Amino acid sequence: MKRIVVIGATGTLGQAISAELKARHEVIEVGATRGQYHVDSTDPASVERLFRDIGKVDGVVTATGKVHFGPLAQMSVEQFWVGLRDKLMGQINVVFAALPYVNDGGSFTLTSGILGDEPILQGASATTVNLALGGFVRGAAIELPRGLRINVVSPTVLTEAMEAYAPFFRGFEPVSAQRAALAYLRSVEGAQTGRVYRVGY
Amino acid sequence: MKRIVVIGATGTLGQAISAELKARHEVIEVGATRGQYHVDSTDPASVERLFRDIGKVDGVVTATGKVHFGPLAQMSVEQFWVGLRDKLMGQINVVFAALPYVNDGGSFTLTSGILGDEPILQGASATTVNLALGGFVRGAAIELPRGLRINVVSPTVLTEAMEAYAPFFRGFEPVSAQRAALAYLRSVEGAQTGRVYRVGY
Ligand SMILES: NC(=O)c1ccc[n+]([C@@H]2O[C@H](COP(=O)([O-])OP(=O)(O)OC[C@H]3O[C@@H](n4cnc5c(N)ncnc54)[C@H](OP(=O)(O)O)[C@@H]3O)[C@@H](O)[C@H]2O)c1
Ligand SMILES: NC(=O)c1ccc[n+]([C@@H]2O[C@H](COP(=O)([O-])OP(=O)(O)OC[C@H]3O[C@@H](n4cnc5c(N)ncnc54)[C@H](OP(=O)(O)O)[C@@H]3O)[C@@H](O)[C@H]2O)c1
Repeated sequence: MKRIVVIGATGTLGQAISAELKARHEVIEVGATRGQYHVDSTDPASVERLFRDIGKVDGVVTATGKVHFGPLAQMSVEQFWVGLRDKLMGQINVVFAALPYVNDGGSFTLTSGILGDEPILQGASATTVNLALGGFVRGAAIELPRGLRINVVSPTVLTEAMEAYAPFFRGFEPVSAQRAALAYLRSVEGAQTGRVYRVGY
Repeated sequence: MKRIVVIGATGTLGQAISAELKARHEVIEVGATRGQYHVDSTDPASVERLFRDIGKVDGVVTATGKVHFGPLAQMSVEQFWVGLRDKLMGQINVVFAALPYVNDGGSFTLTSGILGDEPILQGASATTVNLALGGFVRGAAIELPRGLRINVVSPTVLTEAMEAYAPFFRGFEPVSAQRAALAYLRSVEGAQTGRVYRVGY
């Protein structure tokens, strides 16, 4: 039984991750507006407050992150920044702030997505951010102290999200959030580090 | 004979790229403080002014970009942002601003580096940024209009930079800037797009 905080626990993916983890672990569910605790992961001070409130944990899972989708030729620099601030740095802020609160041998598990490996129209920002997250975990993995591990889960599009995302993901085979959630268990309960767990592709 | 702008032309790598390109092309050399034209690539308005001044080109090469090196456990979020603002968005700002100025069939060639593929201690930010750049060119390549192409060159450490960087790159075999510059020719004069040209590893 580990104590795991899931940031984004109230989302499509996060709900499934929390449900899977609860089978064997204590799960602290964090959202922006829903959940037991609230945080704005784009704001390092907010993330620091969160960890002062919840204290020590054995694992940190993040399943948050907005990215702007739109045709590249019409994308503004400001729109491109959204994914860097929200999906990329939102998760990296959590790693930096949580570091002193994760017990020896604990883990970080972040979330990227299939667009890192399979670019689509209107997805240049997502491809950039998803590969950046893969880079971060590979770079961080070799430096984390105290046996801490860090991985990222890269799911394909979720069945639950297809209603909203189908036009972007023609021909992509979705997976259920529950199936994607299994990869988070592999990261939290396993022993690997610096890994990208691809799910459904 | 193409008209190619090299941003970062006055740097260690950029000087070699410019020298190689000059054998067959008109090269416009841009630096921050040196070169024929000056620009601050972290500032989109500055990049827009640059392209209004120089007008149409057949190719854009960027060889700029600062990244913070330091132990992950002591890195601040603010230090992590340096690489995103400077190396990542500095080059992406150029792509967005230059797009209307690149002639049909023209190319963009950006610069990442070996740390995307080979993480080192103190290099988590560099690994993140370099893979993000690879993601950007893969995502952008399938959306660019008018037969435009985009690639990124990922050199290993340069011989010319070993004096400063050797402690970070123990056991890495450096390549000369001149050899790294050849990959930029392959991108500018070739036909591929969405490619990462690895040099020296
Ligand atoms: N959905 C997919 O098909 C899919 C596929 C692959 C990868 N992903 C990735 O998985 C992640 C989650 O996607 P999702 O579809 O589950 O999203 P979602 O349903 O919109 O859920 C987002 C979650 O993040 C929380 N949140 C939003 N803004 C936040 C902030 N500033 N700080 C902290 N928490 C915040 C939300 O809290 P509240 O509920 O309180 O607002 C919610 O718990 C994203 O990175 C996404 O790119 C999704
Ligand atoms: N050196 C290596 O071993 C190595 C290996 C692999 C990858 N790289 C990558 O290659 C790129 C260039 O490295 P380098 O060693 O050639 O660097 P460098 O010698 O420091 O040269 C930097 C160049 O960028 C220009 N510059 C600096 N700030 C700028 C700004 N805000 N806007 C526009 N231009 C700016 C400089 O202009 P001024 O001369 O006017 O200041 C100079 O032309 C970097 O992305 C680096 O990570 C380098």
